[in-house]
Amino acid sequence: MGVVSIALDAMGGDRAPREICAGALAAAIPGEVEIVLVGDGDVIHEALHGALPPGLTIRHAPDLIAFDEEPAAAVRSKPDSSIVVTAGAVRQGWAHAAVSAGSTGAFLAASTFSMRRIPGVLRPALAAVIPSHGGPLTLIDAGANVDPRPEMLVQFAHMGACFAEDVLGVVAPRVGLLSIGEEPGKGNALTKDAHELLAAEPGIDFVGNVEGRDLLLDKVQVVVTDGFTGNVALKTAEGTAREIFRLIRTAAAANPLTMAGGLLLRRGVRDLRVRMDPETYGGAFLLGLAGISVAAHGSSSRVAIANACRMAAEGVRHDVCGHVAGRVGRTATRAVADA
Amino acid sequence: MGVVSIALDAMGGDRAPREICAGALAAAIPGEVEIVLVGDGDVIHEALHGALPPGLTIRHAPDLIAFDEEPAAAVRSKPDSSIVVTAGAVRQGWAHAAVSAGSTGAFLAASTFSMRRIPGVLRPALAAVIPSHGGPLTLIDAGANVDPRPEMLVQFAHMGACFAEDVLGVVAPRVGLLSIGEEPGKGNALTKDAHELLAAEPGIDFVGNVEGRDLLLDKVQVVVTDGFTGNVALKTAEGTAREIFRLIRTAAAANPLTMAGGLLLRRGVRDLRVRMDPETYGGAFLLGLAGISVAAHGSSSRVAIANACRMAAEGVRHDVCGHVAGRVGRTATRAVADA
Repeated sequence: MGVVSIALDAMGGDRAPREICAGALAAAIPGEVEIVLVGDGDVIHEALHGALPPGLTIRHAPDLIAFDEEPAAAVRSKPDSSIVVTAGAVRQGWAHAAVSAGSTGAFLAASTFSMRRIPGVLRPALAAVIPSHGGPLTLIDAGANVDPRPEMLVQFAHMGACFAEDVLGVVAPRVGLLSIGEEPGKGNALTKDAHELLAAEPGIDFVGNVEGRDLLLDKVQVVVTDGFTGNVALKTAEGTAREIFRLIRTAAAANPLTMAGGLLLRRGVRDLRVRMDPETYGGAFLLGLAGISVAAHGSSSRVAIANACRMAAEGVRHDVCGHVAGRVGRTATRAVADA
Repeated sequence: MGVVSIALDAMGGDRAPREICAGALAAAIPGEVEIVLVGDGDVIHEALHGALPPGLTIRHAPDLIAFDEEPAAAVRSKPDSSIVVTAGAVRQGWAHAAVSAGSTGAFLAASTFSMRRIPGVLRPALAAVIPSHGGPLTLIDAGANVDPRPEMLVQFAHMGACFAEDVLGVVAPRVGLLSIGEEPGKGNALTKDAHELLAAEPGIDFVGNVEGRDLLLDKVQVVVTDGFTGNVALKTAEGTAREIFRLIRTAAAANPLTMAGGLLLRRGVRDLRVRMDPETYGGAFLLGLAGISVAAHGSSSRVAIANACRMAAEGVRHDVCGHVAGRVGRTATRAVADA
């Protein structure tokens, strides 16, 4: 395909517009990946120091949605907000994907309203990436559906596998169901029912239940769960990692010898922190819509924004939406040969 | 009170009987805390090298329940197993508390059958301890009830507060509800309903929702959740910590300089690992029964076993069961002044 065009909300996130614009600059490759910065034109121009480097364009959207606004109401009442204009880009045809570090709730609502579900998809779901031992692990759903039905988890499994293949380049991803024991009978009512459906579903390499402690190992490449449990697990892993790195810094500051030790180990620990950093994978993909929507962390730096744009571009290039439609959409042939 | 007597399953856990017996030896204080080792008498004698130090006694129980046996069936069919005899000690009156590192499911089932629920308690729940920044944090339910009702979570809050006060020595514990956002409206159907009930409940210092990333901080001292989410969060935190420490060892082994750094930092990181180690708190307390039952990790070392026995003794000394009965039992005065 030709140029991939990405709409990027320049006003969203704690560090907008400067870090967003810097991230766009890092991700843009003129003639290959072009970024449309969406927001107040004057503010964006200022953040870019008056220049408009090749690969970047600006789309004026004067209004703002704040983090604490009720998402659905804000989206309805602010059609000229950077979030709503960004999310509308795909349907209006001036971009292939939308990225925002603004209010996640508002961006997901605007994306769902604008891009619509792929026919046959019961619920869109959020795919987040965990930097596990053997490579990136996809956790789906990371927070979009707090009380899903078991058959929705089967669709999440398909969508997560499409994402792992198309966006992360994982070959033949193995899929696990997050539960509290490896035996099929372990778990709550939802996971027990979902386990049965997943075990019978063709086209998924379902290996059974996995546990919270498996999330950083490489047993599976896709972990399926409901959005409540997924969000708790993701934030628990992030919080634990952050706290341990903080405590290691404290331990290194204890006395001159430990300080020397900390300095000698600094590069290794820094590499590790970068690897474990949620920013490495930039953001969560909303899957199941007829378009690509990536919700970046509110605290995103330029690195996170650039990575989110690169992931969005991968999704466009490998047509993750077409892949999802083929596997779980209404047009999908459900008589796939049983694996 | 006089001597506290603890029944300890000498045959339960991956490292039984040697580590269990060594843990008993470390925890016993003749005339204060006495441990009854339950299991095959010959095997226990051998593990103790033929001696029976003061503070220890042996109760013969010839049968074993394996990790992979179906808990309820195993408990019914093996009345002479070390797990069933240990759990039966409190009701039979020859010990004040029961501790086992054997099959958690079987031990919890045996404890529930034998000790019975405190009248008025809807469901017993497992309290686990997370070594958070400001001190030990109680997570309840850590895995006993996978699909509880909202009113059960209110009882878990009371039981967790009793445990934090009596066993961990926390003064006036603050209680949070594990959810996916701080606002009361965030979460699944269970947490939204539980939030309303908790906010209206007298006698609990309920501060609202907390998130997975708050589990290692000191926002609250008790976190309430369902047993499915609690178990996933606990194992995610443990798995993340273990993986990061493993990666730091790998980073330290990279070259002579990083090795030197690792050596200089070793004590600090080791202290940290000990602090983050699940073994530090020895095991999970089953609350809501008319007796104290502590389920230790299957992989428990002597340190974990000794700590589990010490926690059990604290629970006996401070009468955590009486406290729970007073706060949530049928005899409790429900007209406690609103805090």
